[in-house]
Amino acid sequence: MNAVNQHVLATDLGGTNIRVALVDQLGNISYRNSTETLSDRGIGDVINRWTDALKHVMDSVDTKAVIGLGVAFASPIDHQTGVVYNPPHLSNWDGFSPKSILEQNLSMDVTIGNDASLAVFGEYLYGAGRGFKNMVLLTIGTGIGGGIVMNGEVYVGHRGFAGEIGHIVIDKNGPLCDCGVRGCLQSMCSGTAISRIANEMLTSEKCTILRDDGCDNQLPVTAQMVVKAARAGDGFATTILDKVARNLGIGIAGLIQIFDPEIIIIGGGISSEFDLLHSGILKSVDMNIYPHLRGVVPVVKAERGDDAGMLGAAALMFRDKGIEIGT
Amino acid sequence: MNAVNQHVLATDLGGTNIRVALVDQLGNISYRNSTETLSDRGIGDVINRWTDALKHVMDSVDTKAVIGLGVAFASPIDHQTGVVYNPPHLSNWDGFSPKSILEQNLSMDVTIGNDASLAVFGEYLYGAGRGFKNMVLLTIGTGIGGGIVMNGEVYVGHRGFAGEIGHIVIDKNGPLCDCGVRGCLQSMCSGTAISRIANEMLTSEKCTILRDDGCDNQLPVTAQMVVKAARAGDGFATTILDKVARNLGIGIAGLIQIFDPEIIIIGGGISSEFDLLHSGILKSVDMNIYPHLRGVVPVVKAERGDDAGMLGAAALMFRDKGIEIGT
Repeated sequence: MNAVNQHVLATDLGGTNIRVALVDQLGNISYRNSTETLSDRGIGDVINRWTDALKHVMDSVDTKAVIGLGVAFASPIDHQTGVVYNPPHLSNWDGFSPKSILEQNLSMDVTIGNDASLAVFGEYLYGAGRGFKNMVLLTIGTGIGGGIVMNGEVYVGHRGFAGEIGHIVIDKNGPLCDCGVRGCLQSMCSGTAISRIANEMLTSEKCTILRDDGCDNQLPVTAQMVVKAARAGDGFATTILDKVARNLGIGIAGLIQIFDPEIIIIGGGISSEFDLLHSGILKSVDMNIYPHLRGVVPVVKAERGDDAGMLGAAALMFRDKGIEIGT
Repeated sequence: MNAVNQHVLATDLGGTNIRVALVDQLGNISYRNSTETLSDRGIGDVINRWTDALKHVMDSVDTKAVIGLGVAFASPIDHQTGVVYNPPHLSNWDGFSPKSILEQNLSMDVTIGNDASLAVFGEYLYGAGRGFKNMVLLTIGTGIGGGIVMNGEVYVGHRGFAGEIGHIVIDKNGPLCDCGVRGCLQSMCSGTAISRIANEMLTSEKCTILRDDGCDNQLPVTAQMVVKAARAGDGFATTILDKVARNLGIGIAGLIQIFDPEIIIIGGGISSEFDLLHSGILKSVDMNIYPHLRGVVPVVKAERGDDAGMLGAAALMFRDKGIEIGT
């Protein structure tokens, strides 16, 4: 059962990209590909292109060695039924279950889970969480998601909705989020928030390369532009990122006090800019936490990037089939 | 092993009272007593009176049936070493471990844990959490503590510090808490907070029985006085409690999104006034949560009151000894 000749077809459906891969028990990825999600074309169209991308992988491998499909999905999701709820970037999928249609289209068993919950499983087994048993992953990109490992197990909650860390409130009078809540972490620390803060503050700020850079011609300023300006030493951009780091630290301090984890992992698009935020986060954590937890919990960058969700989804399928996962 | 003739000596050391009890495997309490903590008299004095209270129980029972001592302690605590950290109402105990001294004084095995973590275990086994496997308990009194049960197990975190729910921030510009953090749940929703808000708002409020009631002669107004006034129909007092319920709802919405629990349990001194807060909490939870979780998670009153911590401590000792716990 433990020979490394078994594979899981793994996929990650996000708001921007559909990723597919072939993963073995050791977390090695022998094939990967990606295509745009283009969700505005409708669910049917996405499902067809998704199925094609997955079939394309199967055409190129020994299908007998593929034991099933593991799906990471960017939404709160009922892990039993596979029904997705209020996907933030795939709004027309609300209430839909892609599980059975994928089972039919590909004639294989399918396990499905929330992308961040599966990403923390991937990081735990094959990334920054190796060797630890209690951790929280924040995936920070357009939005903010989260995944939890406690006592060596991914915790998904009673209905599979756990880990929605992006929607905890840190400033009840803060900005209104798409989720309908004021001052949640997502509304203050996501990529979308960085862009919003930059555009708001820019109206009263003259001295920044974001403006010099022809910003007036290319409004709105994006998070990427802010990061680029900060890397070029722009004080205004740095102030924005410091503010975001401070707010992230408030949320992370809360998570540390709730979970007493060994490690906090930062993934998602923002993790490639982690060096710009790290010291600001740590400073803010220490200011917003019980004294005995100051400086105790490392906050680190995720190691498996966009692969983490697929690695977790594959590991879930291996486990469901009773196949031991190597690390 | 399973005959109901074995008992645990159980105790709860809080900032105000030392409680002692004798608990059997079914959670029946056959003896209970309490005495004031009087922590200002120093650790040695408290330990002596605590030991006396425990010995007094032992003098009145068949000691062979007592398998050990279970201790619930009102502080973040290292469950392995028994060292307490920054106890909010027992400040001189910081860094001290009462475990070994109790073992010596009573010549029996001792297990020790955070009072709120043990209280949620007690409620899970013998109270409002029966039949559920995922729950969060908030103990709201002078301060705010918390306990977590996930997948049927109490979660205490890597060092045993988990569940410090009172110190998650919901208003980063809010009032400064004793813990050094601004706008944490404890600073806005504890009994201490109710008193503070009442005294602050009273300066600009004429029309309240808190003032008519000779309040000027008995400042500061206490949380108990606010509750009493609200029960008498006082609008000012009701406004204060509505505000507290609203803020509690923000914190609870965050916890529901993090844990996706089956139930949220409110314990501590405030739970006897739960009816005054319940509808306000539920309304606020629904306003601060993802749509698919609105109205889904019941928020209920704890059932075992001040006994919950001792019941949890006893159950922990039974489990440590491999003795099955009936419910």
